[in-house]
Amino acid sequence: MGNRIITISREFGSGGRTIGRMAAEKLGIPCYDQELIEKIAEETGMLKSYVESNVEDVQGGWLSVLAGRDYYGHSPQDDLHAAQTKVIRELADKSSCVIIGRCADSILGDYDVLKVFIHASMEKRAERIVNQYGETAEDPIQRLKDKDKKRKAYYQLYSDRKWGAMENYHVALDSGVLGVERCAEIISQLY
Amino acid sequence: MGNRIITISREFGSGGRTIGRMAAEKLGIPCYDQELIEKIAEETGMLKSYVESNVEDVQGGWLSVLAGRDYYGHSPQDDLHAAQTKVIRELADKSSCVIIGRCADSILGDYDVLKVFIHASMEKRAERIVNQYGETAEDPIQRLKDKDKKRKAYYQLYSDRKWGAMENYHVALDSGVLGVERCAEIISQLY
Repeated sequence: MGNRIITISREFGSGGRTIGRMAAEKLGIPCYDQELIEKIAEETGMLKSYVESNVEDVQGGWLSVLAGRDYYGHSPQDDLHAAQTKVIRELADKSSCVIIGRCADSILGDYDVLKVFIHASMEKRAERIVNQYGETAEDPIQRLKDKDKKRKAYYQLYSDRKWGAMENYHVALDSGVLGVERCAEIISQLY
Repeated sequence: MGNRIITISREFGSGGRTIGRMAAEKLGIPCYDQELIEKIAEETGMLKSYVESNVEDVQGGWLSVLAGRDYYGHSPQDDLHAAQTKVIRELADKSSCVIIGRCADSILGDYDVLKVFIHASMEKRAERIVNQYGETAEDPIQRLKDKDKKRKAYYQLYSDRKWGAMENYHVALDSGVLGVERCAEIISQLY
């Protein structure tokens, strides 16, 4: 039997990363999240911090994406996305695993994938990011909105589908209502 | 403990009705679907066939909704919706149950509700409606599109939310990929 992959797409602050880790642990398969950043940085020779802030989010909105392009319409983000595609496909070829975010659901369209989306209300996510990442000068609701926007823009740039549209996922769960533990359970059962 | 309600919203042809029945059976609680039509017909004195075709779908699009209104902006659909609200709230007050469609998720916003959405690809749904309801002169994909449109219009007329938008549901499942049996299992486990 081929490898079976779980991709976890998630709204910022929904606990998708924790849920993915818990599900992977239950199933005894690896979970890739920060590791992806390291591998992509190695692959491209780019700085980890640059990879981290550009591999899933479009920084500075759509205009910056256009502005960064050379004469041939090619940008550093495109190199990054090519490396990301290569790294993610190599990991999926190696073994069954859970992959958090980074458009893996779209990159692995031709693999045996369970596509999961984790979301929660603004209030629950705001609560979570303040608990996890601490207060900042910026209002948590505004931080969430900015992050959602960047993630959506990135997804739409590099896939032909709409981020967060129900029809693109096999399972979508509200972690704010169901709780992270139950979400992880459902995912591991469905696998 | 108060009553706990499961509402199943679903795309036409996704098997949501069957899934709801199966989950209710597993949980030993009633499932309301056709029964709602009968109760609403009793309540309003309207014909069952009229109730059935108007209680969840806007017939003839938005214009007909406007056209049917009297001087006070009131239409027979509004009476129907008022009766529907009454019937659904009475059932939810009586016992824990599963309610299929009919905007129950929006009508029971203040109850203890697990909000489920069932969807599937056009291809899977077309296959299902041809199997279940037989061939008609109209192309199944066109039938699905018409039905989705009417259901969406109805929902948006009588709730302030978007039909099929992920954030309105606690669990959304692709029955075409997961299968109806597994969907029913997940729902009964989450209850």
